Amino acid sequence: MGTALEGNMRAAIMRQRRIVVDQLAVPEPGPGHVLVKTLACGICGSDLHMLRHGPRLAAEAEPGDRIMQNMNFDHDVVMGHEFCAEIVDFGPDCRRQFKAGQKVCSVPAVLGPGWRRPVGYSNDYPGGYGEYMLLQEGLLLPVHENLTADVAALTEPLAVGLHAVEMARLEPDSVPLVIGCGPVGLAVIVALKAKGLGPVMAADYSPGRRALAVAMGADEVIDPNENSPYDTWRQIAALPNEAPPPLGPIPELFKPSVIFECVGVPGVIEQIMAGAPPQARIVVVGVCMEADNFQPYKGIIKELNLQFVLGYSPEEFAACLALIDSGKLDLSPLITSRVGLDGVAGAFDDLADPDQHCKIMVQPHRPS
Amino acid sequence: MGTALEGNMRAAIMRQRRIVVDQLAVPEPGPGHVLVKTLACGICGSDLHMLRHGPRLAAEAEPGDRIMQNMNFDHDVVMGHEFCAEIVDFGPDCRRQFKAGQKVCSVPAVLGPGWRRPVGYSNDYPGGYGEYMLLQEGLLLPVHENLTADVAALTEPLAVGLHAVEMARLEPDSVPLVIGCGPVGLAVIVALKAKGLGPVMAADYSPGRRALAVAMGADEVIDPNENSPYDTWRQIAALPNEAPPPLGPIPELFKPSVIFECVGVPGVIEQIMAGAPPQARIVVVGVCMEADNFQPYKGIIKELNLQFVLGYSPEEFAACLALIDSGKLDLSPLITSRVGLDGVAGAFDDLADPDQHCKIMVQPHRPS
Repeated sequence: MGTALEGNMRAAIMRQRRIVVDQLAVPEPGPGHVLVKTLACGICGSDLHMLRHGPRLAAEAEPGDRIMQNMNFDHDVVMGHEFCAEIVDFGPDCRRQFKAGQKVCSVPAVLGPGWRRPVGYSNDYPGGYGEYMLLQEGLLLPVHENLTADVAALTEPLAVGLHAVEMARLEPDSVPLVIGCGPVGLAVIVALKAKGLGPVMAADYSPGRRALAVAMGADEVIDPNENSPYDTWRQIAALPNEAPPPLGPIPELFKPSVIFECVGVPGVIEQIMAGAPPQARIVVVGVCMEADNFQPYKGIIKELNLQFVLGYSPEEFAACLALIDSGKLDLSPLITSRVGLDGVAGAFDDLADPDQHCKIMVQPHRPS
Repeated sequence: MGTALEGNMRAAIMRQRRIVVDQLAVPEPGPGHVLVKTLACGICGSDLHMLRHGPRLAAEAEPGDRIMQNMNFDHDVVMGHEFCAEIVDFGPDCRRQFKAGQKVCSVPAVLGPGWRRPVGYSNDYPGGYGEYMLLQEGLLLPVHENLTADVAALTEPLAVGLHAVEMARLEPDSVPLVIGCGPVGLAVIVALKAKGLGPVMAADYSPGRRALAVAMGADEVIDPNENSPYDTWRQIAALPNEAPPPLGPIPELFKPSVIFECVGVPGVIEQIMAGAPPQARIVVVGVCMEADNFQPYKGIIKELNLQFVLGYSPEEFAACLALIDSGKLDLSPLITSRVGLDGVAGAFDDLADPDQHCKIMVQPHRPS
């Protein structure tokens, strides 16, 4: 390789259940891999959960758990999987269809014969909370020069929302309800509106998040302290309150309802199951990493469907970058703060307050 | 009405959380209702759950709960919703397309303008653990004279299985796995085979229930003490154990898998979520009436789908009676005991032992 980059880099590392800044070796690109310089990387709520609950989950992980199988919490992990980067150098066997200096996005994965590693959730492949990363050449998507790295880095969380909407199998007259307007819920709202679905209802206790939901296109926002999201949903969807019960399945009475769980803390699924109308589909997008309780009877009596979702396909990812690049959306309000590597640990703490922040962008080369 | 039946009847009544035999008034048929004599009524696991957990569930019930809304546990309820009966008399406004003496089955419901009551789960409309019931004339299905009332009464539990299979949206190459081979699991097996789906795998700890599963057509039965149902499923479905992980969604690697939860006690859904392969659909047919625990992460990492189901449509019910009447199936091994009204309380106790009994048939007019 022989580049000037041989040596060390700085990274905000998950080590002993804390985030610490330290020097690590710059990774060496293998066959088909590309060394990139991280321009921007969003902090994901899953990373906060991973810091807190990851060691327990790794200890209990089933074979084939594609997140936990490469995570050894006794060793360093550099998280960060929502990034935009710049090509620095190429490993062997690269096709070099882009030049060094090209700004790129990518699904956070590197591949080899018979294996895949998630970038940002493995001991081997550092993520975007470090100055440099390895990516897979064949997965790189070029980012237009007019698009800022910060906004391009929102491709990944937006893809999570688009995938959730695709998995929801919405019908044209479905009336979607989004519970929780953090980054995940906002991505779902953007994806619903981009697909022309709605009216879109969204609920969050935080005034700041409700304002962002409106900015992202929600047609109706609900403060659960003031109104039941489910009652509001029934009014907007014009559901009969006391219709004569039919003999057969109940659903013909109702518009198809899809509720997106975008909170990811214990108790929310149970609450949604209690509030949901009969035959509702509940799409679980929030990543709850703790034990949870629920009452199966509440699902049975209403024949509810719970669809758990994770990630996205490369096609969904590419569609989101194209949507952002189209200029039809202004996602910049989602970015509420920018920090360097020394600010990552503090940003993890700050994100606990939903009214202060939405997406905090890490810029590893930002001067401290 | 002026029939000889004015007066009292005997019934096994749910009263003060116990089953007691007492005299009740013979019900009076309203418009469109028919008075029938109960010939046979199966004891359903849901009735056992209802006796134990019903009062708590009724106290917490949401508006629109179509089971609990008519259940006041301070007053008598005559349960029993899996019945075959004989027409005795007609209320006003009946079309009388069948004659008195006709043997009939029916979905357990009576209707009026703007209301529906489940027969067997309401204070007003006694079910099949009593000598007489009211049914809805328009819902009656005639039972062929050669079909015994006992076997015809299996229409209802079989319809539960058929509905679960319909809700599972199986593809032709799906490999279904049935967890639990009590009456619900056996009904699912019968419905799967009747639809030509399979191979059908079924798991139960009880040797007696595994033998019944084979008799009902299961292609492979599994003792979970000896083998993991999920590992066996993987072998039979010829799934790759260590396939190179794809970039996109994982499901292409696997045959579509559908797992039927037919146990209905806390912890089973969590176990199935832990053992299920990625992208599996879990159909919850067992009726768990207690609080339960689960780990959402196990659903998320594998993008599982949980479909809760309840009941059946009138069309599914009619299809099951036609299937039984066709003589293609011998369901009689499912009936492991017959009792009179004085035997109902004991039968509830006996059903706690899964190796002793499958379906116990109550014959209210059986001499004690």
